[in-house]
Amino acid sequence: MKQITVNTSQGYDIFINHGILFKCGETLSSILNTRTLAIITDDIVNSLYAETVINSLTSQGFKVCKFVFPNGENSKSISVLNEIYDFLCQNNITRTDCLIALGGGVVGDITGFAAATYLRGLDYVQIPTTLLSQIDSSVGGKTAVNLNCGKNLVGAFKQPRCVICDPDTLLTLNDEQLADGMAEAIKYGMIRDESLFELFENHDINNIMDCIDDVVYRCISIKKNVVEADEFDKGERMVLNFGHTLGHAIEKFYDYEISHGNAVAIGMCLITERAYRAGICEENVLDRLINCIKAYNLPYELNVSMVAIVNLCKSDKKRESDSINFVICDKIGHSIIKKVSINDFQSFIL
Amino acid sequence: MKQITVNTSQGYDIFINHGILFKCGETLSSILNTRTLAIITDDIVNSLYAETVINSLTSQGFKVCKFVFPNGENSKSISVLNEIYDFLCQNNITRTDCLIALGGGVVGDITGFAAATYLRGLDYVQIPTTLLSQIDSSVGGKTAVNLNCGKNLVGAFKQPRCVICDPDTLLTLNDEQLADGMAEAIKYGMIRDESLFELFENHDINNIMDCIDDVVYRCISIKKNVVEADEFDKGERMVLNFGHTLGHAIEKFYDYEISHGNAVAIGMCLITERAYRAGICEENVLDRLINCIKAYNLPYELNVSMVAIVNLCKSDKKRESDSINFVICDKIGHSIIKKVSINDFQSFIL
Repeated sequence: MKQITVNTSQGYDIFINHGILFKCGETLSSILNTRTLAIITDDIVNSLYAETVINSLTSQGFKVCKFVFPNGENSKSISVLNEIYDFLCQNNITRTDCLIALGGGVVGDITGFAAATYLRGLDYVQIPTTLLSQIDSSVGGKTAVNLNCGKNLVGAFKQPRCVICDPDTLLTLNDEQLADGMAEAIKYGMIRDESLFELFENHDINNIMDCIDDVVYRCISIKKNVVEADEFDKGERMVLNFGHTLGHAIEKFYDYEISHGNAVAIGMCLITERAYRAGICEENVLDRLINCIKAYNLPYELNVSMVAIVNLCKSDKKRESDSINFVICDKIGHSIIKKVSINDFQSFIL
Repeated sequence: MKQITVNTSQGYDIFINHGILFKCGETLSSILNTRTLAIITDDIVNSLYAETVINSLTSQGFKVCKFVFPNGENSKSISVLNEIYDFLCQNNITRTDCLIALGGGVVGDITGFAAATYLRGLDYVQIPTTLLSQIDSSVGGKTAVNLNCGKNLVGAFKQPRCVICDPDTLLTLNDEQLADGMAEAIKYGMIRDESLFELFENHDINNIMDCIDDVVYRCISIKKNVVEADEFDKGERMVLNFGHTLGHAIEKFYDYEISHGNAVAIGMCLITERAYRAGICEENVLDRLINCIKAYNLPYELNVSMVAIVNLCKSDKKRESDSINFVICDKIGHSIIKKVSINDFQSFIL
C-alpha cells in the first residue's frame, strides 16, 4: 500500500493499492464518523465495480444508497446535478453523512460539486476508476459541472475526505481511455519532471501498464505538491493548465465529441509549437513532445481554423478582465505561466 | 453614515445611510478593482431602483450588464440559477469581475450562490432593499437556492465584498413586507437583546418606521456578532434558527404560499409554547412574544395537524444523522440550542 497525504486546508490521504476496492469498507470505517453513504456512479462503472464496493461497505455496517447516471461528458450537467440533489433529498442524506464518487472524472467532478453545495456542504470520498481521474481530477478538490457555453464553468473548491485508488481498475480500460489519461501524465512530465517524461519516452501505449503503479504514484505526487502550494488556483497551480487553454477551446469547438485527453494532447503540441516559433523553447522540446504523444496514440495536430479556436479561448475560466493566462514549457520538465492581453495571445497563436 | 465591519474569513463592511443608493458607484469605486459589473435583480426592484443604481455606477466608469427575473420565492430555483449562469457567460463575466445583488432575500441568496460557484467563485456585493434582507439575509454569507423538496437545500458560504444598505428603500415596502422583516427583527430581540425586544413592544406596525434606522443597525450588529463567532454554522450560529425549524416546515407545508416572516412568527410562538409547557420558560415569555407578534400583524398560531409539520422537519438542513437541532428562548433575550433525537423532538412538539 502506498499512501500520499495532501496538506490542504482540509488535509486528506490518498491510498493506492491493488485490490483496495475490495477493502474500501475497512478503509472508510476508520476515517468516517457517519454510517450512511450515498454512492454516485455512472452506468458503466456501476456494472463493473458497484457490487464490489457495496459489499465491502455493507460488511462494515454502512447503510448505502446509490444513484446511477449515463456514462459520458454530457452527464456533467446542471440537469443531472439537479437529479443528484433530489436523490439525496429523497434518501434523507444529512450534512453529517458522506457521498462516494465511484468512477472517472465526470463522476468525481459532479459528485464533488454536489458535496460542496448540498446542504451547504457535506463530506465526499473519491474512488477514481480511470487513469485520468486517478492522476488528475480526483486529487486537489476542484469540482465542477459544465454549462452549454463551456466546460467546468460552474464549480467549487472542495477537498475529499480521502481518495481510494485501485490500479486494478485500470485493467478494464480500453486503449482510448488509457491514452486519454496518458495525455495528463505526459503533461506532468512536461511541466515538472523530465525523468518521468523519459519513462514515457521509454514506453508506449502497449507496455505502459507494466509500470502503471509508478506512473500513478509519481503523477499524484506532482499534483499534490502543486495543489499544496496553491490550493485555490491563484498562481502556481495554473501550471497544471499546460495544454488546457487551447485544449478546452478545442473540446468546445468539437462540441465535446473529442475526448479531454486528445484535446489536451493537441493543445500541448500547438502551444509548444508557438513557443518554439517564438524562440522560447528548443526544437527538441517540440520533437520529443510530439514523438511521445504519438507513442500513446494521441493526436498532435488540428486541421481547423485557429481563429475559431482562439475566439473560443475568450471564455476560458483562467481569463481575467482583459488578459489571459496560459502555460508554456521552455524545456522538458519546466513550465512558465504567461499572462498577456487577449490581443497578444491572439498574435502569439495565429 | 453608519458602518459595521464583519470580521469573517473574508472581512467586509456594511454601509448604512439614507440615499446611499444614489452614491453606490462612489462607494464601490474605492472597494473594487474591476470595472465590470453584472447586476442581478427582480422585476419589481428593477422598476424601482435599477436606474438609480446603474446611473451611479456608470458615472464612476463602471461597465454594467443586468439580468432581471420574476419577483418571488419561486425564482430561487435551479432553473433561474442556470439562466443567471448563461447570462454571465454570454456577457463574458470573468472571475475578477463582480456581481451585484440588488433586491430582497431571493435576489441576495441566488446571486450569492451564483457568485460562489460561477468560475468557482467571484466577488459579489449586496444591495438589500427589504427589511428582511437588510437585517438578515444580506449579512453573513449564507447563499442558497431551493429544491422541490425543500428550501435553501443547495448553497454555499460566500461572504460579500460589501453590503450597501439604504433605509430609504424600506419606504416602498407595503405592510406585509414590513411585517415579514419584523418577524426576523423580533427574533433578534428574543435570542439576544431584551432592550431591542422592548423597543418592538413599545411600537407597532404603524410606527416602527419612525425608528427603523436604529432597528436595522441593532439587528445587523447582533447578526455580525453571531456570524463572527461561528461563520460556518457549526454551533452558536444556530441560535439564528429560532422559529425556523418549525418555520421552514410550515413554509413547506403551505408549498411556500406563506411568507418566510409569517412562518417564522408562527414557528417562534409554537416552539415557545412547547418550551413553556415543558417548564423551560416562564409564561410571560410566551405572552410577551405573542403580543409583540400581534402588534406587527404577524400570525402566531396554526390550524393544521402538527404531525404533518413535524414530519416535514425531518428534512431540515440542521438535522444530523438521527438527531435534530432546534432553538428555544428560556427568557426574552436569551436562547439555548437543543440537540435531541428525532423521536424526542416529535414528543416535544406533539
